[in-house]
Amino acid sequence: FRESPSWAEADSLFSLSVESENLQKQIDELASFSDTPAPSVTRILYTDKDVTARRYVKNLMGLAGLSVREDAVGNIFGRWEGLEPELPAVATGSHMDAIPYSGKYDGVVGVLGAIEAINVLRRLGFKPKRSLEIIVFTSEEPTRFGISCLGSRLMAGSEALLKALETTIDNQNISFLDTAKSAGYAQDPVDLTSVFLKKGAYAGFVELHIEQGPILEEEGVSIGIVTAIAAPASIKVDFEGSGGHAGAVLMPYRNDAGLAVAELALAVEKHVLESGSIDTVGTVGILQLHPGAINSIPSKSHLEIDTRDIDEERRNAVMEKIRQSAIRIAKDRVVKLAEFKIVNQDPPALSDESVIRAMESASKDLKLSHKLMISRAYHDSLFMARVSPMGMIFIPCYKGYSHKPEEHSSIQDITNGVKVLALTLAKLSLK
Amino acid sequence: FRESPSWAEADSLFSLSVESENLQKQIDELASFSDTPAPSVTRILYTDKDVTARRYVKNLMGLAGLSVREDAVGNIFGRWEGLEPELPAVATGSHMDAIPYSGKYDGVVGVLGAIEAINVLRRLGFKPKRSLEIIVFTSEEPTRFGISCLGSRLMAGSEALLKALETTIDNQNISFLDTAKSAGYAQDPVDLTSVFLKKGAYAGFVELHIEQGPILEEEGVSIGIVTAIAAPASIKVDFEGSGGHAGAVLMPYRNDAGLAVAELALAVEKHVLESGSIDTVGTVGILQLHPGAINSIPSKSHLEIDTRDIDEERRNAVMEKIRQSAIRIAKDRVVKLAEFKIVNQDPPALSDESVIRAMESASKDLKLSHKLMISRAYHDSLFMARVSPMGMIFIPCYKGYSHKPEEHSSIQDITNGVKVLALTLAKLSLK
Ligand SMILES: [Mn+2]
Ligand SMILES: [Mn+2]
Ligand SMILES: [Mn+2]
Ligand SMILES: [Mn+2]
Repeated sequence: FRESPSWAEADSLFSLSVESENLQKQIDELASFSDTPAPSVTRILYTDKDVTARRYVKNLMGLAGLSVREDAVGNIFGRWEGLEPELPAVATGSHMDAIPYSGKYDGVVGVLGAIEAINVLRRLGFKPKRSLEIIVFTSEEPTRFGISCLGSRLMAGSEALLKALETTIDNQNISFLDTAKSAGYAQDPVDLTSVFLKKGAYAGFVELHIEQGPILEEEGVSIGIVTAIAAPASIKVDFEGSGGHAGAVLMPYRNDAGLAVAELALAVEKHVLESGSIDTVGTVGILQLHPGAINSIPSKSHLEIDTRDIDEERRNAVMEKIRQSAIRIAKDRVVKLAEFKIVNQDPPALSDESVIRAMESASKDLKLSHKLMISRAYHDSLFMARVSPMGMIFIPCYKGYSHKPEEHSSIQDITNGVKVLALTLAKLSLK
Repeated sequence: FRESPSWAEADSLFSLSVESENLQKQIDELASFSDTPAPSVTRILYTDKDVTARRYVKNLMGLAGLSVREDAVGNIFGRWEGLEPELPAVATGSHMDAIPYSGKYDGVVGVLGAIEAINVLRRLGFKPKRSLEIIVFTSEEPTRFGISCLGSRLMAGSEALLKALETTIDNQNISFLDTAKSAGYAQDPVDLTSVFLKKGAYAGFVELHIEQGPILEEEGVSIGIVTAIAAPASIKVDFEGSGGHAGAVLMPYRNDAGLAVAELALAVEKHVLESGSIDTVGTVGILQLHPGAINSIPSKSHLEIDTRDIDEERRNAVMEKIRQSAIRIAKDRVVKLAEFKIVNQDPPALSDESVIRAMESASKDLKLSHKLMISRAYHDSLFMARVSPMGMIFIPCYKGYSHKPEEHSSIQDITNGVKVLALTLAKLSLK
C-alpha cells in the first residue's frame, strides 16, 4: 500500500501479533469492577468501582509505554510520542462505564483493544510519525447524570454542557462537581473549559466498538466500517396528578399520573412506528411512579425517552408528535404536564472520507471481510467528529445483544478488530 | 338510653370532655417519627421510626392506666380491666404505620383517639363492666412486605399468612422474621400461632378512622357509621422480554417488557370502567422497569395492582379480565408473563348489627349528625370481623384526601369521633 515503509511489507501484515488470550483476561478482569454480580456489569461514573477500573486501565497504559494524563472531568489520555510530535496526533479510544446490569464488551473493547493495538505496533517495531493517543472518555453512558457522552461532548466544546454541569445533580441530589472532586477531578479552581479540544488537535480519530446490532454476525462479515452515526435525542417528562387512596377515590374523580405516563410510553412506540422507516427507534427505559405504593394512586410520574434516527428531520418530527401526545394526555386525564424537557437533540455525524479509506485499506490488507454500515447506537465518535476527522470500526457481537449481561464478542472477532485498528492507526499516523 | 347507669345521664353526656388540644399535639408529635420530611409521613414496619413511634404510643397507654403487652409480631394491646374481667372484652384500635409520603391521620386517629376515649371515660368516673382494650395493629399497610393488615390478618387466624411469613422478604431481601427479631419481636422459639385470637375473645371491636373519601365533608355529616367494608384484592405481575440497546435493536425485533406493563396498566383501568359500577376501583400504584436506564430496552417489568369492590363477584370478574389481558399482551408482544400472582383476594366484611346500633345510639345521644355508609378502603376491621362483632366510626376528612401529605381532619371532627367512640365503648362494655 502506498504509505508502506519497510516495516509494513505485505508479509509482516500477517504477522500482526495480537496477544488474544491476555486481552480476554483483561476484559474479564475489568468486568469484575462492577456493582452488580457477574455476568452483569454495572460501572457508574465516579463510583468506587469506576475509580478502581480507571486505575487498572491507566496502569495498562503505563505498561504499554504511554504517557498518561487526565483532564478536569477525568477523560484519560495515553500518548505515544511520534517522530514528528508537533504534528496533530492520531487518536483512538472509547468508554468503560457500563449501565446497570449490562455486559463487559460495550466500550471496553475499544479501550483495552486500543492499548493492545499500540502493543501490536510496538512489537512490530513501528515508529509513528504523528503521535498516537488513546482516549478513555468519561461517562459515555447517561446513567448517573442523564448526560450521554459527557466527556467527549465537553471535549467537543459544548458551551451548553459547560453551563449545565455547574448545576447538574444525580438522583441522590449529589452534584456533578462534588462527585468529580471526590473522585479526584475538577479540583479548585474548577475550569472546565480546559477540557475543550482545539479544532485540529487531532488529524484523525478512530473508535473500535462492538456492533450492538445483528448485521455483521448474520452476514458473516468480520469488520464494519461506519460511515455515519444516527442522530440521538432524549426527553424527560413529568406528570403531576392528585394522588389519593386506592380504595376511596372513585374512578371518575381520579387524576392518575401513572396512567398518563403509561399512555405516553405507548404513544412513543406509536409515533416511532408511524414514521414508516425501519431506521426510526424510540425507547422508554425509565418510568417511575410516586409515591410507589400499591394502595396509593400515583400523584407524580416520570419517564425518560430515547429516540434516534439516521434522518435528523424525521427524528425531530417524532419528538414533536411525542410532545403533542404528552400535552393531549395531560389534558384528557386532567393531570399537569410539569416537565417536558429535551435533554439532548444531537445531529448525526458522518465519518471522514480519509479515515474510511484507511479502515477499508487496512481491512483489505488483512484480508478481512468488511462492509460499510451505519451506527444506530451513538458513541463518543459522534462528538469527536465535531473536532476531528472521525471513523469507527465495528466487530460482530452475539445476536446483536448489548446493554445486557448476554453481550458477547468472540476473541477472534475482537482480535480482527484490534488488527484493523492497529493498521489504521499506523496508516493515519504516517500521513 | 337503655343501658344508662348513673354516670351516663343525658346531662353528663354533653360533658364528655375531650382534651382536643393535647390530642392534636400528640398527632403532630407522632407524625414527626417519619422517614420523609414534613408535611409528609413515612413510617414503615420495624424501621427505627416505627419502633420509636411504638414506644411513644405504649408510653401514652401506660399514662392512661392501661396494662400494655405485645404479641409475637408486635400487635400492641392496652387493657383496662373491667368489673367482670372474665367476660370477653370490648376492643378498639387501628394502625400507625404510614405508606411513603402519606399523611398523619390515617390510622393514627384511631390509635391516639382510642387512648383519649379511655381518658374521657376515666375522667367521667366510668367503670367498665367488660374490660376495654386498645389494639395497635402491626403493618396495616402492605408497604414493606406486600402484605396488607399483617397483624390483624394473623390475629384472625390466617393459616396462609402463617405459612407465608416463614419465607416473606422485603425488596432488600431482608426476611420478615429477621426484621421482626431485630425490632424485638418474634424471638426464639418463634411461634406465630400465639398471635391467633380465639373466636369469642372479644365481645365487640370498633375502629375509629378518617373516611378517606369526600362524602361526609360534602354532605356536612359529622359521623359515618360503617355497615360494610369493600372487598380488596391485590395482584403482582412480572413480564420478561429480551432487553437490549435502545439505539441498535430496531422496532420489529423488540420484546419490550416495559411497553407490556404500560399496556397492562391501561387495561386495568379499562376493565374496571367496564364493570359499569361506580363502586369498582382499580389502581396501579407500583410499576418498575429493569434495568431502568434510558438507553436500555426494559428486559423485565413489574407492576402491582389493587382492585376493590363492594361486590365480591364483580371484583373477581375484573381480576379475571386483567389476567386475560396480561396473557394476551404477553402473547402480542412476545414477552413472557413470568408471574401473575394474586397476593390477596379478600371477601367484604359486614358490620355487626349490635355494634351498628351502639354507634348510632351514641351519635344520637351526642346529637351528632350521622349516616350509614360503606368503607371503600379496607382496614384491620376487615379481619377483626372474622373473630368478633365489628363496627367502624368514620369522621370527615379534607376533600377525601388520604395517602398523601394533604390528608387532614379538623380537630373538631376528630373530637366528635372520639366522643362517639368513648360512648360506644361504654355502651358495649356494659352489655
Ligand atoms: Mn452503551
Ligand atoms: Mn459504547
Ligand atoms: Mn392507609
Ligand atoms: Mn388506615
